[in-house]
Amino acid sequence: MFGTLPHHGFEPIGDDCTVLSMGDDALVMTTDMLVEDVHFLRAASTAEEVGRKSLMVNLSDVAAMGATPVATLLSLSLPESAQGEWSEAFMRGYYDASREAGVALVGGDTTASRDRISINVVAIGRVQGANIKRRSAAKVGDIIAVTGKLGTSSKGLVDIMFGDLDTVAAKHHRVAQARIAEGVWLGGRTEVHAMMDISDGIASDINHIMELSKVGAEIELSTIPTDYDIRYATTGGEDYELLLTVDAASFDRVAEALKEATGTMLTAIGRITDSGELQWLENGAPATVDLKGFTHF
Amino acid sequence: MFGTLPHHGFEPIGDDCTVLSMGDDALVMTTDMLVEDVHFLRAASTAEEVGRKSLMVNLSDVAAMGATPVATLLSLSLPESAQGEWSEAFMRGYYDASREAGVALVGGDTTASRDRISINVVAIGRVQGANIKRRSAAKVGDIIAVTGKLGTSSKGLVDIMFGDLDTVAAKHHRVAQARIAEGVWLGGRTEVHAMMDISDGIASDINHIMELSKVGAEIELSTIPTDYDIRYATTGGEDYELLLTVDAASFDRVAEALKEATGTMLTAIGRITDSGELQWLENGAPATVDLKGFTHF
Repeated sequence: MFGTLPHHGFEPIGDDCTVLSMGDDALVMTTDMLVEDVHFLRAASTAEEVGRKSLMVNLSDVAAMGATPVATLLSLSLPESAQGEWSEAFMRGYYDASREAGVALVGGDTTASRDRISINVVAIGRVQGANIKRRSAAKVGDIIAVTGKLGTSSKGLVDIMFGDLDTVAAKHHRVAQARIAEGVWLGGRTEVHAMMDISDGIASDINHIMELSKVGAEIELSTIPTDYDIRYATTGGEDYELLLTVDAASFDRVAEALKEATGTMLTAIGRITDSGELQWLENGAPATVDLKGFTHF
Repeated sequence: MFGTLPHHGFEPIGDDCTVLSMGDDALVMTTDMLVEDVHFLRAASTAEEVGRKSLMVNLSDVAAMGATPVATLLSLSLPESAQGEWSEAFMRGYYDASREAGVALVGGDTTASRDRISINVVAIGRVQGANIKRRSAAKVGDIIAVTGKLGTSSKGLVDIMFGDLDTVAAKHHRVAQARIAEGVWLGGRTEVHAMMDISDGIASDINHIMELSKVGAEIELSTIPTDYDIRYATTGGEDYELLLTVDAASFDRVAEALKEATGTMLTAIGRITDSGELQWLENGAPATVDLKGFTHF
């Protein structure tokens, strides 16, 4: 229905961000809403952590387009119990993360609510048009790669659900770290084709690249970088690592240069195929596991 | 605190929208959050009306800068009771209003909530830099003027609170109409200095112009265009008419041309002074009424 409206230069929805080209430059924009008792629990996360995470999940979407995050808008609706101390601590966390990422807060809205906190963040990035990375750009034969390690955040969520709030994984879950420098750096490499951030787990997110690029994929389970069970690493959400496809002949060179530029590991986990399907492999043979995407609690 | 962050070309907060200059052109952006049982009641407004109003209150902020609204981002968090029928009707209202205003929907987020609906809209406008109208641009001697009539929306809210959902005023309250064509037209007139939209009532909103322009104001109660009690017209919120200051010698000409271009009446209600204070007049003499701003229920 909304596709019939005038576009005014904005690209149709489908990527991590919408894109508005303005000459050689482009703006990218994304928005995410976080709701108390759906996306976070006041008992399990400090207000500072919620502030930081609200920002980071949006900056992750900007960086996943190859763009540099420059500014955000923040809307907060706060019940009486979260006004004062909670909201001040939230803003401290949001400010500290904004300062680290070098982004401005340029607008917002604060309002009351009856009993639960709602948070909406809009993040804006700038990028040279030529550097924009889209989900639709994967090519048959590309290496599928991920930054960092997968599964830590969802393992942390399970720890939190069992009351272990202070494990390494639980801390990682509570404070999401966006791969900003990595996304911007990868945006500048023409050998990188498609890119997105991993918010629902690769088992689910790879489908977006397959659909928009009209390709298939095979992923070798034994190569997925993780410290935890393979289910966390494939179907666990909220890792905010980058999922990308890279020209096969250039992969080693790109991975080495990324490591040198940012300290972050890039790991090959599979290949783009022309099958139109997702095929899991286990030591080269078709895997029998049934891996579904992650459902936000 | 946030003032210490890098600006990346965005103007500091203070106007209806933030402004990002890009060459001769500029983008303006604004965001508003609407929360169930704070900004609307499911029992008192249809889902279509809430959809339309969510869009219109944001487009009003864009038009108040003299900018043409081009696109929006929409975040929705929906409890189970609002998924399905309610949300479909909401999207119909949002779509119909988007089509009327000629704006695209370019991004968003839909998520679950426990029991109440939260809605966040971001509106984006484009404007030639020279046409941007700011709250800080009022000059001593300017005529203070408003579009349309004031007080209808708050009279409608009171009607709704007493169970009269179908009065003319109640309907007006439920479906906010932004002055888009008027804002864009007034943006093109150099005789118009400061401009903003009226969301909290002129008794409250004029203070923003006074503070940012470092001026005073006198407003003649008998000249305020309204069909209702003067308290609604001065301290009632959500009218979404435009409040502006116009070079005194040019006022009649501007008002006549606006009427011809858009059909909308522009009424002089006072003058910008150098007193730094707000003075209410009643037939030329200092008024004794105590008029406070509107508090959202």
